[in-house]
Order: sequence, then structure tokens, then C-alpha cells
Amino acid sequence: MFKTVLIANRGEIALRVARTCREMGLRVVAVYSTEDRNSAVVGLADQAVCIGPGPAKLSYLNLSAVVEAALATGADAVHPGYGFLSEVPDFAEACETSGLTFVGPPAAVMDRLGDKSSARRAMAEVGLPMLPGSIEPIVDADMAAKVAADVGYPVIVKAVAGGGGRGMCVVSEAGELPQRYREIRTTAQALFGDDRVYIERYLPSARHVEVQVVCDGYGGGVHLGLRDCSVQRRRQKIIEETPAPSMPASLTEEICEAAVRALVATGYVGAGTVEFLLDGPDRWYFMEVNCRIQVEHPVTEMVYGVDLIREQLLIAAGNPLSLRQSELIPRGAAIECRINAEDPARDFLPTPGQLTELRLPGGPFVRVDTDARCNSRISPAYDPLLAKISVWGPDRPQALARMLRALDEFHAEGPGVCTNRDFLRTALRHQPFVAGTHNTSLVADLAPALP
Amino acid sequence: MFKTVLIANRGEIALRVARTCREMGLRVVAVYSTEDRNSAVVGLADQAVCIGPGPAKLSYLNLSAVVEAALATGADAVHPGYGFLSEVPDFAEACETSGLTFVGPPAAVMDRLGDKSSARRAMAEVGLPMLPGSIEPIVDADMAAKVAADVGYPVIVKAVAGGGGRGMCVVSEAGELPQRYREIRTTAQALFGDDRVYIERYLPSARHVEVQVVCDGYGGGVHLGLRDCSVQRRRQKIIEETPAPSMPASLTEEICEAAVRALVATGYVGAGTVEFLLDGPDRWYFMEVNCRIQVEHPVTEMVYGVDLIREQLLIAAGNPLSLRQSELIPRGAAIECRINAEDPARDFLPTPGQLTELRLPGGPFVRVDTDARCNSRISPAYDPLLAKISVWGPDRPQALARMLRALDEFHAEGPGVCTNRDFLRTALRHQPFVAGTHNTSLVADLAPALP
Repeated sequence: MFKTVLIANRGEIALRVARTCREMGLRVVAVYSTEDRNSAVVGLADQAVCIGPGPAKLSYLNLSAVVEAALATGADAVHPGYGFLSEVPDFAEACETSGLTFVGPPAAVMDRLGDKSSARRAMAEVGLPMLPGSIEPIVDADMAAKVAADVGYPVIVKAVAGGGGRGMCVVSEAGELPQRYREIRTTAQALFGDDRVYIERYLPSARHVEVQVVCDGYGGGVHLGLRDCSVQRRRQKIIEETPAPSMPASLTEEICEAAVRALVATGYVGAGTVEFLLDGPDRWYFMEVNCRIQVEHPVTEMVYGVDLIREQLLIAAGNPLSLRQSELIPRGAAIECRINAEDPARDFLPTPGQLTELRLPGGPFVRVDTDARCNSRISPAYDPLLAKISVWGPDRPQALARMLRALDEFHAEGPGVCTNRDFLRTALRHQPFVAGTHNTSLVADLAPALP
Repeated sequence: MFKTVLIANRGEIALRVARTCREMGLRVVAVYSTEDRNSAVVGLADQAVCIGPGPAKLSYLNLSAVVEAALATGADAVHPGYGFLSEVPDFAEACETSGLTFVGPPAAVMDRLGDKSSARRAMAEVGLPMLPGSIEPIVDADMAAKVAADVGYPVIVKAVAGGGGRGMCVVSEAGELPQRYREIRTTAQALFGDDRVYIERYLPSARHVEVQVVCDGYGGGVHLGLRDCSVQRRRQKIIEETPAPSMPASLTEEICEAAVRALVATGYVGAGTVEFLLDGPDRWYFMEVNCRIQVEHPVTEMVYGVDLIREQLLIAAGNPLSLRQSELIPRGAAIECRINAEDPARDFLPTPGQLTELRLPGGPFVRVDTDARCNSRISPAYDPLLAKISVWGPDRPQALARMLRALDEFHAEGPGVCTNRDFLRTALRHQPFVAGTHNTSLVADLAPALP
């Protein structure tokens, strides 16, 4: 087992990873930008290294600064968290060539699955159902028009290198396509340095579900159930839960087993997620693979009683899976809400600023993941995630009641700082959510003026 | 089901009960002393009533003020929490005669089990093993000497009306007995208004274990496993866990089943605990019954996935047990630490004062129960309990590592305020605790100068 883990991230996930490292007796090295010098993980780590100024490009996305910090501090493993460098194959490779254990899949596997086009090809090969659309990138406007016409409108044009809800646009009719096609290529080039796009049928009211998988690279793989992540704003999740509600057990089982088979077949190693769109009672389609731990992993941990970061670290150290599918017995239901510093009334615009008060919920079956404190400053340089509140209950209605109670206890205050707390409460009380029959249109239904 | 619950308590347990009431859609009435006017439960409650000044005798122990507050606010049920009026049969009876549902056993059952002498008789009748000693109260010094000689020294002299670690003293040899006997009667009279005492053999290095039981009053009863509460200072628990470590499964089962049979036989209703002393590998003796929810109930909730306050409320409303023994499947291990504002170096003397900073642990499988905030004032009028930290792990070693991590994250600061955090860490790292072979002498072993 390695001895020292450098955490190449910030915020709640850096703290989350540090917590498990400490519990496992591993030495923790934090990296931080000048914006984050007073963050919780810096205080908790055994050693902390400043890797640059606030903008992520100059620090958390600076691949060589992170590798240098790892080598300088004697780290022998690097945990990338989510976002930033977590799905950058070059970073995984740089770690490998520097003799550092990268906590995640091998660079080659990440490369293959991170590219949406090659991922679609790989997943179609292992038999996952695909949405009608192009497997290969679209080369020009004519091909775009032909594929879209074959698929049928509305379609979604997505960047091959996209992810995290960025680099995609919906096109409702043929007349819009040429302009939208040009725009998204320009955007993709700017965001990802790669202007390749592909086209799929767009399902306006599908459900977004995903399977948590863990593989050991020795042919072993297990799933930890299905999460529903249909409540999204700006294509980013804000409420997640497991098990996915209103699902026949046989369908859940079918999707979960397919996801494990698919990842094992690609040579995947570590924790990963296969995302699907669910359209109607039994049609489901592969969407993408996330080659990292996900923001919403706590709900799975609560229901299965498993520390996923610990599993990631054990597997990265070369251990075979200690989890057995037959011993992974789900208990009850869990829901996570992401409390963001943003203003739902202004199109969820981030509202960074200085907190003057922060009260977090507690008590039975409530988990809080945050690195914010009473006097934290929420930087405009980063994602406005303020806290993740996760709750567990013996069934979904009790978990839902508990989440509403926990949100009532949450209070953040500071000049100019808004949160989406009240919006989350509204969404949780919305009849389709209560019934568990909602889909990705929920946020738009609640706020028709929002995009 | 009743609609409004008055919570006749303060601090973390009042908040704990309020949380479940809210989740169940019940209206919450808080009562508070002038000391507690800014407490968390007052902020969370639908209505709050001041019932008197700081000293508990003038507020939280003022039976008629509490009943009046319940009647004035339209409450139809009263939850007493732990301590204060929770085990005062007159209070349960006053609620009953005022038409209020008391969340706890009937006054007559509480009366019978709260009196240590009649409890010993009742429990001996239903077959629980008793420590050698007197069933009936000791009437004079001669009887004391005779019983002690029969039992064999060391003996423990206990107030019949005692509880919570108060009203008892150990006598090592016959010469000490007359004076100690007189002293403890005087103390018992002062503390409980009842100078009756009884004598038992004293086991200096026994383990303190207890069974969580829930009965419905219709003959139904279940247990939720065995807690070990052997780590005590001043005869008050500071570390509790479940399952009790180093126990053969058959012995745990035997003790748990005996506890359920005993409480069902007495006509018990609601959540209750039967405490035992465990001496060596298979000798166990009845100690006492606690007719209320206990401070350490969170560890049981974490391992069984059950909200015990919810069960209390459902049963108080007249429902039969919804829990079935065969469905109560324990998962993993949980540990609780009580963080007190006290100075271990000065005989655990309370250190009340104004907090200027408070940082609480969070993240996976960590539960915090506290009503303290960044700027709370810890009043000298009450118990110095600052926060309960509970953690869960798939096994005891992982739970233990998690607790050490959680304690590392805990930080409280304020002029003159000490906490026992570092003492707890020392206790958790003490070899007998790590091995799970410790007993009630652990704290004395660590601090030989302490009583």
C-alpha cells in the first residue's frame, strides 16, 4: 500500500478524500491555490503546497505543478477527486510516468471512455443500447443535416470531448441546425480544445439514471445500484438519490448488470459510473461513462454502507475487490441535495461572497459534506457548491421528509450571497418528485422562464 | 396520532426529538429557561414557552410549569427526553391526568422500575440474574454490616431512588461501612428526597452493557442489540458502542432475549434499556432499567437503521410495534463519544463559558448531535455535554479509525473552556479499548489520580 496521497483538488471533495486517507492511516498532501489558502483541507492535511493563483487554469488544472508537488512532497499516490484533472488522460499518464499511483482507471482506458465518440463505439460493441445518432464525429454541416434527419428532431449536438453538462445544445428543427452546429463546434474548441461533435436524438423528458460500478482490473466488478439524477439545472445535477424510484426491480438489475459487464469488458479499474437515459417504462440508452468518483457518491455510500473512496484507494494500490455482489445489500433510500451559492431567480447565477453565518443540519441519518465555515469566503473562481446535504431513511418518503427537515435547518448568510435552498425545497415538494415519476424537465417545469 | 408534541427538555436531546417530530409532520412546542432563550430548539420549534429561570429546579424540573405550558399551547403529547422529568412517575401521571400523552412507559411501570429496590425484586421474579446483595432496602447500620459481610467486600451502597451515576459509593472493607452508610443516606435524601439504600457486591473491573428494548404494550417487544458503555468517568458514560465487542454471539443473544422478556413481563411500553454488569466471560447480572431514551441511542440507530424517537412516538400514539425482530438486522459497528466542556486534568471539572469558535466533524458515516453553535454560551446551570459525535463503520476497527479522524476535526474554543476531546482520543487509543477487552476501570487506569 502507498503511504502518502496527494489530493489534486479543492473544496468538499478534497476534504472528503482527506478524511478517508486519515482513517486509513495515509499521510495527506493537499495542494491549494492562493484563493484557498485558508481552506479546511489545508488545515487538516499533513502537508500543503500552494500550486498557483486562483484561476483553475493556473493551479488546479496545471498538470505539471501538481505532479511536481507530488514528487516534492514524497507522495506516492494522487487522488484527483472530480472535475479539474480527474478525467484528463494526460494527467493520469504523467502520474504513471512519474512513478505515482493515479487513483483512477489507466490513462488508455480513460482516453477511450472520455472521448464520447470512442466511448459510444466501445459501449455499442459490448452491447449497451444506444440512442439513434452518429457513432463517428460529424465532419461537416451536410453530414450533420443528414444524421439529424435520419435520427429525427429534436436532436442534441454534443462535443466529443464534453462533460459535466457543458458543450452541448438541443436543436428542435432542421432550420436551426446549420447555425447551432457552427456555434457548438466553436464552443467545443474553446472549452476543450477539440471541436469534434456528434449528434443523438434528444429526449426532452427522459430520466437520467446511472450505475455506480467498482472494478479491480483483475476481471472483478460489482455495482452499487442505480442513482436517479434527473433533477438538473443548466444540465447539472442538483438532487440525486438511490435507489432510483419507480423502477421495476428487474429493470434496475438489468441496467446494473449491463453496466458492470460493459466496464469490465473495457478493462476499467476503480470506481466509475455509467450514465443512462431512461425513456418510458423500459427503454434505456447509454449516455456516457464518468471515469472518477462522482459528486453524488454519498447517497450510494449511505445505502450500501461502503466508503467508496476507501475502495478506490485499495484498488489503486493493486488489491483485488473486497466487495462481493452478493454481500452488497442495499438498505433504505438516500437523497442528496447540492446547496449552491446561486440565485434561482436570476437563472441560477452564482452569488459568490463572504459568509457571515453558516448553520448546518445534523442529527440522525444526515450527512454534511462541505468545507465552508461560519466565516468562509465563496470564491467566484470556482463552482458555487456550498454544501452537499445527504440523508438516509428506511424508505423514500422518510428520506424525503428528513431532507426537508435538514434543509429547514440549513442557513447561510452573507452580503450578496443567495442559495438555492428554497428552490430545492420547492423541487422536493413538487408532486412528480414526491411520486418519483419526475424526469429531467422538472426544473424547467418549475421555472418556465429558465433555459 | 397526536398533532402537537411538547418537548420537556433542553440541549441536544430537545433538538434531536424536534427533528423527528418535524419529519413526522408533528407541530413542536419547545420549553426553555431564560438561560436557553437563544437555543437551537427554540429557533426550530413552531412555538416556544419560557418556563422559568436557569436553575433546573425552577424550570425543567418544574412539573406543573411544563404541564401548564403543554395545555396552554394545545400540545397533546409530551416527550421528556432524558434526565430532568423523564423518569419522574409523578410527571408521567400528571400528563396522563391532564389528558396529555406521555411519551414513555405508564407512571405505574416507571414507579416500579425506577425504584431500584422494587426493580430488583421485579427483575429477579422474571428470572434475570442478580448480583449478591439485598433486594429489600437496608433499614439500619446493623443490617448493612450483616448484608455486606454475607455479600463479601468490596460492596457498593446505592440509593434506591438513584440513577445517572449519582447516589452510590463503594466500600472496600468493613471498617469503612458505618460512616459510608450514614453519608450515602444523607446524600440520597438530599439528592432524591429518599434516603433508602441497598447493598450489592461491587465488581471493580466488570463491563457495563445494556440492551435497547422497544415494547408496544400489546405484548410485543424487540431488542436492538447490546451496547457497551464501560468507559465512564465519575460513573457517567463518555464512550459507548454497539455491538458490544468481544462477546460470543450466543451470550449477546441470551442477554438481549432475557431483557426483552423481562420488560414485556413488567408491562413496559415504549423504548427502554436494561443495564447489566458483565463479569468475566459468561457471568452477567441485572443492574437497572432506564425508562427513557438514552444519551447513547444514536449508535443503535446507526447500526439498525431505525429512528428510535419515531418508534417512541408511534408507540405512544397507541400503535403496535412496526419493528419485527427478524427484520432488525444489525450492520457494522458504531461508536459515540460525548464531548464535554470539562477539564480532565482537574478531575473532569466542568468548564462553562462563551464559545468563540466551534468546528464540527462531518463527511461519511459521522453524525453530530449538538445544539452548540460558533458563538454559544455553555451555561454552568446544566450538564457540560457539548456535542455527541457518533460514527459508523463496517467493522469496529474502521469505526474506531473514523472516530479518531472525527475527533481530530472537532475544535471548540472560548475563554476558560476546556474539552475532554484529547482525553477521549487517549482512551480510544488505549490498548484494552482497541482490543475491546476494556472494562469500567479504563478511565481510572488512564488517570490513576482520578477517583
